[in-house]
This record gives sequence, C-alpha cells and structure tokens, in this order.
Amino acid sequence: MNTLSQADAAAAALRNAAALDAAVFNGDGLLPAVIQQWDTHEVLMLGWMNRTALERTLVEGRVTFWSRSRQEYWTKGDTSGHVQYVKSAALDCDSDTLLVQVDQVGVACHTGTRTCFDGRDLVVTVGTRPEETA
Amino acid sequence: MNTLSQADAAAAALRNAAALDAAVFNGDGLLPAVIQQWDTHEVLMLGWMNRTALERTLVEGRVTFWSRSRQEYWTKGDTSGHVQYVKSAALDCDSDTLLVQVDQVGVACHTGTRTCFDGRDLVVTVGTRPEETA
Repeated sequence: MNTLSQADAAAAALRNAAALDAAVFNGDGLLPAVIQQWDTHEVLMLGWMNRTALERTLVEGRVTFWSRSRQEYWTKGDTSGHVQYVKSAALDCDSDTLLVQVDQVGVACHTGTRTCFDGRDLVVTVGTRPEETA
Repeated sequence: MNTLSQADAAAAALRNAAALDAAVFNGDGLLPAVIQQWDTHEVLMLGWMNRTALERTLVEGRVTFWSRSRQEYWTKGDTSGHVQYVKSAALDCDSDTLLVQVDQVGVACHTGTRTCFDGRDLVVTVGTRPEETA
C-alpha cells in the first residue's frame, strides 16, 4: 500500500502545480483519462477525472475517477478489488487528456473482461500504406 | 491505398449498424477516440468523433476526427502527411468510447513528438501491490 507521507504528498502537489493549472477541463469540469497497463500496454479503459480526482490519482498511488453516473469519487477497486496502481501519468499536448500507466489487479471492466474493449470489435476496412500495395 | 468498393462499404456499414445505433455520443454529439499504434501499442493521441466521423473511420481505412476547434472533419494526415491507417476498432462496454488500432505514419502530435503524451510526464506517487512490499 501507499506510504506517502503528508510532506511528500505536499511536495508532489507543488511540483505538479503548473501542469495542473494548465490542465483543461470540459464544461462539466472533467477530462478523459486513458488507463493503460504499464507492461503489456493494453488500453484497459477510459474514465473521467475532475481536478480533485486527478490530484488524488497523482499522490495516492491509485487511480481515482469522478463517476458521472453516480456523481461521486470512485477509487477504482474499492468495491471490486480490481485496483489500479499508478506507475506514471502524463497530460497531452493540449493538456486536456490524461494518460495513466497502471498495474491493473484482475480485470478492468465491470463486465468481467480484462479491458473494456475486449470482444467489442467493429467491422473495419483495413487501411495500408501505399508502398505496401505497390 | 484503400480499394474498398461501394458494395463492400455498404456491407460493412450494415454489419456495424447495430453497434453504431448503440453508440453513445455526448451533448455535443461526440465521443472520445483513443488512437493506439497497432504493433508497439503506444497510445498516440485522443481525438473526437461524431457519428459520421466514426462511420468514415470504419469504412475508409483512415482515421477521421471531428475537429472541435475548427468545427470541421479532419482526416488525419491530409495536411501533415501523418496518416493513421486503420487496423481495427472497438467500442467499449458503455459504447461511449472508441479504441482504434492504427499504423501511424511519422508522428501523431502536431508538436512533432511521436505521441501527444511524450515528455509531458507529471510527478506521481508510484503505487504497488501489497505483496510487493510484504
């Protein structure tokens, strides 16, 4: 578990302050957070964070979302045990999307699949670079 | 390049119809699309699609977004040459997020980095499973 001291948490918050002040939240005060398994690089899910959820995710060692359906903070795994331990996080070039690398315990999806995208493929036309078909 | 016939495109659209009818767009008629490099599994960027952009992405072999800033369709690479060729796509369990596997030509980010997250790491407290620290 996370043994971050209050002093460490305060220091981390300070170092992120400029980036967090630049973060762009939507009209509901949220930004999308893409959650990726750090070693296999599977995209596990996408959740939403307000500023407090983002700050908690950065300092607590576990991912916290803002649940839009329940209108409350949702620290992933509190109920299911399917905790997401944070390995790293980055904002994108527009500061309006977060990418979090995690260690996912068990499955990410509430339906029981490893990722929220498993088994939900659409039919696509595969595109190829011109040189591949030359 | 894409040599999909009109008949093939129509057939693909038909096979996706149920999934697309179930897709959930936000108040602006958009959903987030996570773009991932199919072989290295890098998360390249996140863009936004309305239903037409999504349908075009599925049948044209290249990724098309809806540009919120320019309020127009944006087929990635038309200006920059940094085309995203579609390999596969899936909606998530809530049908409100898309994951697209692509072959990214050159760089994904308009700033010149491979992904939109490169070099933009935040300071995090790394979380670990209890057994790792036992």
